[in-house]
Amino acid sequence: MIIDVHGHYTTAPKALEAWRNRQIAGIADPAQKPKASELRIGDDELRESIEANQLRLMRERGIDLTIFSPRASFMAHHIGDFQVSSAWAAVCNELCYRVSRLFPDHFVPAAMLPQSPGADPASCIPELTRCVREYGSVAINLNPDPSGGHWNSPPLSDRQWYPIYEKMVEYDIPAMIHVSTSCNPCFHTTGAHYLNADTTAFMQCLTSDLFREFPALRFVIPHGGGAVPYHWGRFRGLAQELKKPLLAEHLLGNVFFDTCVYHQAGIDLLTRVIPVDNILFASEMIGAVRGIDPETGYHFDDTRRYIDATAIEPDARRKIFEANARRVYPRLDAALARKER
Amino acid sequence: MIIDVHGHYTTAPKALEAWRNRQIAGIADPAQKPKASELRIGDDELRESIEANQLRLMRERGIDLTIFSPRASFMAHHIGDFQVSSAWAAVCNELCYRVSRLFPDHFVPAAMLPQSPGADPASCIPELTRCVREYGSVAINLNPDPSGGHWNSPPLSDRQWYPIYEKMVEYDIPAMIHVSTSCNPCFHTTGAHYLNADTTAFMQCLTSDLFREFPALRFVIPHGGGAVPYHWGRFRGLAQELKKPLLAEHLLGNVFFDTCVYHQAGIDLLTRVIPVDNILFASEMIGAVRGIDPETGYHFDDTRRYIDATAIEPDARRKIFEANARRVYPRLDAALARKER
Repeated sequence: MIIDVHGHYTTAPKALEAWRNRQIAGIADPAQKPKASELRIGDDELRESIEANQLRLMRERGIDLTIFSPRASFMAHHIGDFQVSSAWAAVCNELCYRVSRLFPDHFVPAAMLPQSPGADPASCIPELTRCVREYGSVAINLNPDPSGGHWNSPPLSDRQWYPIYEKMVEYDIPAMIHVSTSCNPCFHTTGAHYLNADTTAFMQCLTSDLFREFPALRFVIPHGGGAVPYHWGRFRGLAQELKKPLLAEHLLGNVFFDTCVYHQAGIDLLTRVIPVDNILFASEMIGAVRGIDPETGYHFDDTRRYIDATAIEPDARRKIFEANARRVYPRLDAALARKER
Repeated sequence: MIIDVHGHYTTAPKALEAWRNRQIAGIADPAQKPKASELRIGDDELRESIEANQLRLMRERGIDLTIFSPRASFMAHHIGDFQVSSAWAAVCNELCYRVSRLFPDHFVPAAMLPQSPGADPASCIPELTRCVREYGSVAINLNPDPSGGHWNSPPLSDRQWYPIYEKMVEYDIPAMIHVSTSCNPCFHTTGAHYLNADTTAFMQCLTSDLFREFPALRFVIPHGGGAVPYHWGRFRGLAQELKKPLLAEHLLGNVFFDTCVYHQAGIDLLTRVIPVDNILFASEMIGAVRGIDPETGYHFDDTRRYIDATAIEPDARRKIFEANARRVYPRLDAALARKER
């Protein structure tokens, strides 16, 4: 089986965006604020939006299952306050849940959180709990910078995040560390902010002793870990300067990298420097880079091809495609086991 | 000849730091503000600080010449106002110039600028001019985020930077795009902020048409280009989404990457994906990562070993070690030619 741990609902029906636009207008003019019940999207529409897009490509590429969360760039936690984020997260999470019910063999939900700049992360726990208990979410997406590029929240090692971590440990779910749209003109969202956040989050883990506090906590760093694997020597050296243990001991029981790296040379580096147990297959398909690579004739985000072509043993490939995901996402493994998959 | 395009004076005599501390104290209490003339460092002290450190390692590693600029993390443009930055830049640039006079065969200066958050970049031009004309500086270091991690300056494509670019073109000097210390607790200086800035700067170039405005402008992106080469496919794909020309045409006449990547796999990736004409040898030695790699028994920052070991033709190696630097830094080439080197 091939599990893609990083899919977002980037193809949701237009009604979702229209509802969001009314919600944003409602911040200034409460008369425009829509109720959740005013968002009406039928099952057929959901089915169509998935069948023609993600599911079509999954079939073409031989991907069996996607961990599916709301569109990352649309989380936009910087817009409005906690109430705005809360209503928006509820609506988005419900849609991903419905997709998982319509295509139970192909999609399993992960939750976005109703984070908001300056709001206590603990305020996200009711939504987190609801998604795990009622929707069967197997993971959360955690935004280390809800400001959208101003980076004025404390680092991930700060105690403010601990209530989230305690729930993650209780439910045995990992977090993908994933920012949203940049509203800082210095940072292009998918070309700079996403990759910077990946590198930043890894370094926040490296300089702290977070995983001594939470030995069971698991973070997935998306986009191949940002700059981290390419600079693995630098990070090993920095850990040494900072008198931290070797990275294998210090972080690699808790930190995992996905394979959203859109060319062969990048995946080859990833599999060369990062232990195979820490690599999870993912494509973030129909995401930042949707085009066809003129150098290969295939989609940039068809990452399965790169994994297939990289020089690793069949057993390592099986780990990247399936076994690691089942280990890092135990609720996914349990759900699959219940279906004898 | 082997030219290291990225060296900082990280080993300056302690008197420099003491002077800076008094200068910083003088921001709150003008009585403590030191005059430039109160910084007294003799030639012997300078000689010793270089001979025992950079020059010793250059000899051990077979590096002939280093482009030498003030310590990057000490630029700290966020401290004080333009007057503070101006006095500090003058002092630091003079020391690098003196090193270049004491060791004319081994060091050539590059200038830091007296940038300050919110100050017009044009205010840096007198120091830039002085360094080029009086000190023989062959390049500048340009900080895209003088705030030190708050990223509240406009992107490098903004017209506010144009006066600097006009001078660069007039003098035919490149800029290394290099941030300084992060005062944002989210970003570790050398583990996150530096790499993020590299990626950010590259993406600012990609999304803009800066090099159509300034066809002769040249930027060196340090630390192997941050996350860029590892994600080269992503950047090629983003350029395509944004309807930009191919990266080779759009950026590679103007953007160059150094080799400050501290492990073999990283350098192998760099030389595999980036055209050889765009790679400049550098080590940033006695910098962020000073230790010995337990996996190799050699210093992490001994980047010559990685270039020697990577699978490229001898002619490509000569370009990386020397010819590219002479092309990108024409004033360096002219200075060497005058000495028949």
